[in-house]
Amino acid sequence: MGTTTGGRQDAAGNAPAESADNENAGAVVDDATATAVERIADAAKAAAKVLARANRATKDAALRAIGTALVEHQDRILAANQRDLADADVNGVTASLKDRLRLTPERIAGLAAALENLASQPDPVGTVVRGQTLPNGLRLRQVHVPLGVVGAIYEARPNVTVDIAGLALKSGNAVILRGGTAAAHSNAALVELIGEALTGQGLPATAVQTIDAYGRAGANALMRARGRVDVLIPRGGRSLIQTVVRNAQVPVIETGEGNVHIYVDASADPETVTPIVLNAKTQRPSVCNTVETLLVHRDFAGLESVLRAAADAGVRLHVDERIAAALPADVPTQAATAEDWATEYMDLDLAVAAVDSMDAAIEHIDRYTTRHTEAILTNDLANAERFIAEVDAAAVLVNASTRFTDGGEFGLGAEVGISTQKMHARGPMGLTELTTTKWIVQGDGQVRA
Amino acid sequence: MGTTTGGRQDAAGNAPAESADNENAGAVVDDATATAVERIADAAKAAAKVLARANRATKDAALRAIGTALVEHQDRILAANQRDLADADVNGVTASLKDRLRLTPERIAGLAAALENLASQPDPVGTVVRGQTLPNGLRLRQVHVPLGVVGAIYEARPNVTVDIAGLALKSGNAVILRGGTAAAHSNAALVELIGEALTGQGLPATAVQTIDAYGRAGANALMRARGRVDVLIPRGGRSLIQTVVRNAQVPVIETGEGNVHIYVDASADPETVTPIVLNAKTQRPSVCNTVETLLVHRDFAGLESVLRAAADAGVRLHVDERIAAALPADVPTQAATAEDWATEYMDLDLAVAAVDSMDAAIEHIDRYTTRHTEAILTNDLANAERFIAEVDAAAVLVNASTRFTDGGEFGLGAEVGISTQKMHARGPMGLTELTTTKWIVQGDGQVRA
Repeated sequence: MGTTTGGRQDAAGNAPAESADNENAGAVVDDATATAVERIADAAKAAAKVLARANRATKDAALRAIGTALVEHQDRILAANQRDLADADVNGVTASLKDRLRLTPERIAGLAAALENLASQPDPVGTVVRGQTLPNGLRLRQVHVPLGVVGAIYEARPNVTVDIAGLALKSGNAVILRGGTAAAHSNAALVELIGEALTGQGLPATAVQTIDAYGRAGANALMRARGRVDVLIPRGGRSLIQTVVRNAQVPVIETGEGNVHIYVDASADPETVTPIVLNAKTQRPSVCNTVETLLVHRDFAGLESVLRAAADAGVRLHVDERIAAALPADVPTQAATAEDWATEYMDLDLAVAAVDSMDAAIEHIDRYTTRHTEAILTNDLANAERFIAEVDAAAVLVNASTRFTDGGEFGLGAEVGISTQKMHARGPMGLTELTTTKWIVQGDGQVRA
Repeated sequence: MGTTTGGRQDAAGNAPAESADNENAGAVVDDATATAVERIADAAKAAAKVLARANRATKDAALRAIGTALVEHQDRILAANQRDLADADVNGVTASLKDRLRLTPERIAGLAAALENLASQPDPVGTVVRGQTLPNGLRLRQVHVPLGVVGAIYEARPNVTVDIAGLALKSGNAVILRGGTAAAHSNAALVELIGEALTGQGLPATAVQTIDAYGRAGANALMRARGRVDVLIPRGGRSLIQTVVRNAQVPVIETGEGNVHIYVDASADPETVTPIVLNAKTQRPSVCNTVETLLVHRDFAGLESVLRAAADAGVRLHVDERIAAALPADVPTQAATAEDWATEYMDLDLAVAAVDSMDAAIEHIDRYTTRHTEAILTNDLANAERFIAEVDAAAVLVNASTRFTDGGEFGLGAEVGISTQKMHARGPMGLTELTTTKWIVQGDGQVRA
């Protein structure tokens, strides 16, 4: 999980109709479900108090114990996963959904390795943000403390169950999980093993709970548990995330879409443009930091060679009329429609438009950006500075592949996802973003004048 | 504004029925209003781009020019204010509402002084949060940038118009204001003068706009302008804030209620307890960091002297049975009801309960706290440490008056309010909390392996 690229990849190649998104939308919450979820949230709150006081050694030992338990008892996990896979066959799901659902000994070993990596990360809890002694002698410090109870709503990838549980534990939070119904058996087995490992380390099993048994109504109750759940993290495709953002009454951390642009300035060096564009588009097309639209200055000299290389690498080019006119007939292209500029393909497709100036590029970006990652390739210092200043996105890159917007690449260690919102956290989110702060003020009788 | 105590004080002594809260609730948004507010928001966004690039000298000059304009043209402000006051007489509002509505030459001078103070504060924009050069040579830094467009919904205090406009400008944001209808003439005059001063400094007048003309529907349109408004700050009484929190589709910074407790430990020094309790209750009863409930350990030696001093200072004591039994008959008290423990009096009232242990005190706090400010008075080191660790609030104080939870007192300079939420900002909010961050990544051709 240290090197993932956010929730967006969970939906890789996954059309909404085949995803689990719609399970979470629109259901009414009956009183019995609301009460059950509230009881679970109250148990989580009690567990959160224990976790908030647990020191790093205790939490790291628990993470390692969970990793060991997953590997040692993988037969239980794989048997449960087989039941989900058999159900998937009955329900006739696509091969890609089935692949995301599948656990193997290798994937379980990967989960344990990710937990080990998490154990090696510094503990954000207790870190002092700032502090001073005031003129009246009050000693003041602001320290990071856990948020409390974290809710997670995600799709049919059982690995996310372990991923989120680990991140929550490390940052001292209790977690309530709502995974996709398609992975319910796998998730139940994983949560049971995690609970056993926690108990074995003297921590409450209620630190990691699932509400999968309560279906859609449970997810809705979780979204409405204002005051009981401190933050809700949706992980999955656009439809899932938007459903949670629109319906939640508890605070949401929105990880999101990346309709990522690269602007190729007139001054850009053609030698560096081709490898960057190829890397940004083809290295892992299904993730959120992949480039989706290329904006090319009309005076850029290397247009043909860049696009020919992209086409040779299997990229389908959706080009505007001026780009089409500038290319020889043997570079395969198709005409871009208005929709292309707003599309996050998550596949080997690239929209390409010509622009007359950097201002036109910035205007295009401003209209279509999801404010995730935007890049300029240039050798013009003033243009680089102006692009950095004027483009409003979580990450702005100069002369580098957009694929670098990632918690692992940025050196943040474990990553919760990539926030495209402006409040609380923006861009790759590490463990610290699963904390809040507390002001601690110590005096010896001070009163205010 | 540098030493205020948050939006809560706007509602000082103000029963919901006489406040402007209900103006903002429940109205339907007609298409014409929605379109008008969207147009205003789009103009604000354009202005925000200019402000985001304005350097500190420009912004400080604008703040000072506004202050000068307010003083020089105070006749226009006072004339508009007279119209609001005359309307208030016709509508038969209370004396306290009329007082909050009234502007005087002294109050206008105070607004100018607050703007001058704001100009003297450091600029949060451009501050580097963290940065490093990665192993692959990418230069990475995370810097503070303005949020963009700030919305403010508040009650009939025209000073808040200048206050919020100044805070937004200093932090590089454009602002859309929705004040109480009762102050509409005053607000219009103030916004006009601010616009003239901005234009005089080469900044767009649309950086500070009001939607007062659109009434309730305008406020509702503002709350729903997701994607156009980056953050909404409600300032006023509980009812206003809760209305905004419940109805807004844009992110809200919740400043809030303070049902503040002081726990007096068995080991507390009676000599320091009395002055702290008196200060916390009587220095300014109508604000959010005033103590509302005193929890006294049964073995604390100074109960009678503390409560006698409070009663002598005019504090009405709402006590439980054990406290009543422990006091001589000449200390005036009344029996506390269940409601008292949950009440933020904002007046010279204090609920008092006896507790058998610190655990019982923490349990009581956990049940009734609004997570604003909680204090322990003690000479027991272990108890102090445990109270700090276990009480979940924006600020936890040891042996000091709760009145210190304040941006000015904490040395943050100007204060937006006191956040009682855990996301984005917690506790006293300075200018930095009106910013977000941007990751800037500079390379020379790096691609991801």
